[in-house]
Amino acid sequence: MTRIACQQIAPVLGELAANAAAAEAAIRAALDAGAEVVVLPELCTSGYMFSGPEQAAGVAIGRADPILAAWAKLARESGAVICGGFCEACADGRLYNSAALFPGAGPPSFYRKLHLWDREKLVFTPGSELPPVIDTAVGRVAAVVCYDLEFPELTRAIALAGAQLLLVPTNWPHFPRPAGERPAEVVVAMATARMNRMAVACADRAGIERGQAWEQGATIVGADGWVAAESREPGLIVADVDLEAALDKRFTELADAFGDRRSDLYGSPAGVPAGTPR
Amino acid sequence: MTRIACQQIAPVLGELAANAAAAEAAIRAALDAGAEVVVLPELCTSGYMFSGPEQAAGVAIGRADPILAAWAKLARESGAVICGGFCEACADGRLYNSAALFPGAGPPSFYRKLHLWDREKLVFTPGSELPPVIDTAVGRVAAVVCYDLEFPELTRAIALAGAQLLLVPTNWPHFPRPAGERPAEVVVAMATARMNRMAVACADRAGIERGQAWEQGATIVGADGWVAAESREPGLIVADVDLEAALDKRFTELADAFGDRRSDLYGSPAGVPAGTPR
Repeated sequence: MTRIACQQIAPVLGELAANAAAAEAAIRAALDAGAEVVVLPELCTSGYMFSGPEQAAGVAIGRADPILAAWAKLARESGAVICGGFCEACADGRLYNSAALFPGAGPPSFYRKLHLWDREKLVFTPGSELPPVIDTAVGRVAAVVCYDLEFPELTRAIALAGAQLLLVPTNWPHFPRPAGERPAEVVVAMATARMNRMAVACADRAGIERGQAWEQGATIVGADGWVAAESREPGLIVADVDLEAALDKRFTELADAFGDRRSDLYGSPAGVPAGTPR
Repeated sequence: MTRIACQQIAPVLGELAANAAAAEAAIRAALDAGAEVVVLPELCTSGYMFSGPEQAAGVAIGRADPILAAWAKLARESGAVICGGFCEACADGRLYNSAALFPGAGPPSFYRKLHLWDREKLVFTPGSELPPVIDTAVGRVAAVVCYDLEFPELTRAIALAGAQLLLVPTNWPHFPRPAGERPAEVVVAMATARMNRMAVACADRAGIERGQAWEQGATIVGADGWVAAESREPGLIVADVDLEAALDKRFTELADAFGDRRSDLYGSPAGVPAGTPR
């Protein structure tokens, strides 16, 4: 079993130093709880509700920024996989809604959100590459960001590339939903896990920002499609998840989520570049 | 709004005449409730738990069989769309797990299940064609059968071909699930509706057959991804669903389930052959 933690923290818009301190404290608390995988929200270094590109540029950081170096150091020291979202500044002035993924050992990987939600299109440049799927001490892992999860072509491609665990830093804006229902995005996470027999760990955010509330949808789903941990409150969730189960795509002796695909009729998604096995 | 009905009836294995009468009565009851779309379960003419191909062959019927002609007649007389599953005999001796779809007017369409579940592989030949997506009085409609729903490539392809409503005759065998959860397949139906902004109507079956119980998962999901009607008991469920909503793929002003696809990176599923618009 692998202990997975999602930290539903509340970044403050524009407060780079305070957010960095909060993210680091959140990682340490998760590690203290025995986490082997720690997921932080989307854009957790910067906040989300930018007035426009100028404000985002003021809190955008490079991949070598000390804030991310601190996450990398914690990953190296603990051996844990650490993943979180940040507002990425590129040398050419472009901004990306990115995720950093630090395996316990080995090089970091980075991913730029492919599917920009709503007004993010006015701030960020969409990514141009599928997410890397990397080997870690806990198994094959990939990260996508928020709205990316709602494109089944992408999550299928990641699963076919061998990912046992999908990490999803997210900022899910609150929408009304029928009484008793989980947020719609959590339903999608459950179905994604079920259809691909791949665990999914979503770290949503808390805190009101410019009047915007969030689903606070932190959820860890096992490779069987059932919720292993969830919370609609700020803070830490932890679950022990069987990632070995994600290597077996059989529903029954004669039914196989991958083997039964009819790629002869509907094709296959383009391959996801895999990292170097370690 | 379109009134959709799913009939969670209990076919009896091998009882062709009794099942035909039950199916016809179920259609009539749904029409009496004002249904404009009626969905019956998978293999509702024959039952499901065949000992092998020989037993299935004994209750397999052709596309011109009087049982299906009766459904066609009810569709013509009422103007309703009627869909249900049957055990199809082919001239070459092959058996298919098929769905018949009779629009209120116009020619019928047929579909042979592409993804055979578990021991179905010992009885049936898998289909070799994607399901037709046809124009009806209530909008564009397609049908798949049971396990097909768990292949997001297929459901995405159907949605991209313009389907506003996906009909799912199904026999979902019962599996244990955590307390308070819907059947896993219903979670998949909800996510399929949400991600594609396409309504999904699943007619599961009731009755114990050779010791096998069923989820009794009859569920109608709107194009918004939320359940409009569901029952875990035998019988009829009915919901009025806005199928016009399925023509608008926007989540928000600037977020679009189809428009935001990154087919430049993960490709597009092969096209689904569309019927002649009427």
